Amino acid sequence: MAISSFHPPVRTLMGPGPSDVHPRILSALGRPTLGHLDPLFVGMMDETKELLKYAFQTRNELTLPISAPGSAGMEACFVNLVEPGDKVLVCVNGVFGNRMIENVTRCGATAVRVDFPWGSAVEPAAVEAALKEHGDVKVLAFVHAETSTGALSDAQALCGLAKKYKALSIVDAVTSMGGVPLLVDEWQADAVYSGSQKCLSCTPGLSPVTFSDAAVAAIKARQHPVQSWFLDMNLILGYWGEGGKRAYHHTAPVNALYGLHESLVMLQEEGLENAWQRHASMHNALAAGLDVLGIQFVVEEGQRLPQLNSVYIPDGVDDATTRQFLLAKYDLEIGAGLGDLAGKVWRIGLMGYSARMENITLLLKALAAAMTEQGYQCSGEQAVTAAEAALK
Amino acid sequence: MAISSFHPPVRTLMGPGPSDVHPRILSALGRPTLGHLDPLFVGMMDETKELLKYAFQTRNELTLPISAPGSAGMEACFVNLVEPGDKVLVCVNGVFGNRMIENVTRCGATAVRVDFPWGSAVEPAAVEAALKEHGDVKVLAFVHAETSTGALSDAQALCGLAKKYKALSIVDAVTSMGGVPLLVDEWQADAVYSGSQKCLSCTPGLSPVTFSDAAVAAIKARQHPVQSWFLDMNLILGYWGEGGKRAYHHTAPVNALYGLHESLVMLQEEGLENAWQRHASMHNALAAGLDVLGIQFVVEEGQRLPQLNSVYIPDGVDDATTRQFLLAKYDLEIGAGLGDLAGKVWRIGLMGYSARMENITLLLKALAAAMTEQGYQCSGEQAVTAAEAALK
Repeated sequence: MAISSFHPPVRTLMGPGPSDVHPRILSALGRPTLGHLDPLFVGMMDETKELLKYAFQTRNELTLPISAPGSAGMEACFVNLVEPGDKVLVCVNGVFGNRMIENVTRCGATAVRVDFPWGSAVEPAAVEAALKEHGDVKVLAFVHAETSTGALSDAQALCGLAKKYKALSIVDAVTSMGGVPLLVDEWQADAVYSGSQKCLSCTPGLSPVTFSDAAVAAIKARQHPVQSWFLDMNLILGYWGEGGKRAYHHTAPVNALYGLHESLVMLQEEGLENAWQRHASMHNALAAGLDVLGIQFVVEEGQRLPQLNSVYIPDGVDDATTRQFLLAKYDLEIGAGLGDLAGKVWRIGLMGYSARMENITLLLKALAAAMTEQGYQCSGEQAVTAAEAALK
Repeated sequence: MAISSFHPPVRTLMGPGPSDVHPRILSALGRPTLGHLDPLFVGMMDETKELLKYAFQTRNELTLPISAPGSAGMEACFVNLVEPGDKVLVCVNGVFGNRMIENVTRCGATAVRVDFPWGSAVEPAAVEAALKEHGDVKVLAFVHAETSTGALSDAQALCGLAKKYKALSIVDAVTSMGGVPLLVDEWQADAVYSGSQKCLSCTPGLSPVTFSDAAVAAIKARQHPVQSWFLDMNLILGYWGEGGKRAYHHTAPVNALYGLHESLVMLQEEGLENAWQRHASMHNALAAGLDVLGIQFVVEEGQRLPQLNSVYIPDGVDDATTRQFLLAKYDLEIGAGLGDLAGKVWRIGLMGYSARMENITLLLKALAAAMTEQGYQCSGEQAVTAAEAALK
């Protein structure tokens, strides 16, 4: 069979994630592997926790990266906070709300779903009505930034509702962290998970999580053991605990954590507010350019995620043909639609290191070329000019 | 707070894992990140499956790496094969047998434990007696290579017993794959998991698994949904399925998989039999050197793992002092004992790229120096001479 080493081309990643990985982070991945109990590595773990507290804007002691992708971070939140028989209110406005329901039912709990149109934000008034109707909701779960549609929900209002009705909140911040404000302590969010491969511009595979004191108290007061050994926060805490002795749990993904550490150092260097501002500015530039191309957004203004732009595919333009053209001719990746939006929309990511003017320029030119090939009238040059003007 | 980039020193890793990572693998980790649905990446996933089939010596279609460390691979096997109310016979001769019991009970199943002294292999006669006593065992679970003690059990005999008593087998091959013969199809093992950071010499964070047709049939015949969404093989299969369309499940850890692919290419280049032979030869050399130093093995000859050598700490020599000396003066890591063996033994790994004569030479000299510092009489030079002689 004789399979050879794999040498990938250099792509520009403007889909829903992974985003472009900064060269400093790629370089960190290949540094010499340390033992996972080496005092120097343990020191790096402590630094990573501090940096994550900054990224989450929290003082929560239980703040660390789960050694697996974001969907494992989601599961970590659910299996630790939810017990058999519990009632969980889940807001569904895209793919990831549905996945939350899967998690709830697999915990032996009851999911009460509140649906919203895909492409819209979660509406707090509807959530409050549902919380009132069901007096005994233990957990309110929602997606802050829906990666499947590009809608941003009001996490502050929703976490406030959870507190008002004495429920815990679980917040999916996979795509929001580093791209838009995420203020865990100020909003009093209880369990929040994110992903390494979105606005942190790190490689995929790690899921930062944070748990409030109330969440930790709920975990400690559980009547049933956590159904997952790998994701049991009681055990993970012993491994990631502050300084000193580490209780062996699993073997940490050492080199992947080098990458996450470097990405968080870069976020600290740029400053969170500056990173949010950069994502907002680049979104404005992209939107101005897409407007010139006659491309419309799925999500209405005011609810749009700057870092994940869902747009309708124009009439007469084919989804797969276009994406294949971009990949083949420009080494450029954009995302397809998911679920009901498959074939109808593209998802254009401006996350982390991908949120740069040179990426936007490439995208607008390449997209115009792809559509022109299919007989659609547009000018990439004019789109770029509009994008540049919007930046000023 | 201002935390800087992390620059680890170059250590020699001769503990229980991670082992030394080959420079080719470190280099692969930093290659440009592709989208996880990019056709080129999907092609690499298919190659990785083929290479894993070779490493497992299986034709099982359901052979792939779980996107998380070995303990998640263990959990994947248990949550997919075990249902509430099932009876699982678990052989316990070290830390990882105990962890299997944790997995069984968290699945709502009953664990029947058969204990063996730590440092000994699992005794098939005792297992057969237990299988006879409990007529309705659904799964027999055991550890092929106990990383906590260095004992190698007869996986062929144990898988044969499972078949004889109409049970499925779950085999922990975390430390065995690539270091000693592991013949999944010939032995008719049903669910086997391994780790990337042992004899494959890759970085930690991935867990290769393989499931037989009988195991797949059991998964498909389940009465209850798999309690983990992230580890549900029905869903993972859709993502890693053969060629063509991939159903989105989670975002694969792209760069970590570059590393695993490269490590498997290297295993293919060396040849499995040659890799096994190299581990055996290096073990013989190490054993000859340790003998000169007056250091005794925990496990009796014939049951010893070549790649993981548990040895008693000599009288008058302190565990922590010695390991700190090795790390500080030689940048050399060896492993501590776990559980009842803590403070009494060292675990010396000769896994993958660590199984080289230059590592053995360094270890023998460094260990002799550390013990001499503590007043123990020995000669590192003589130990090295004996090790070299044993190689011829």
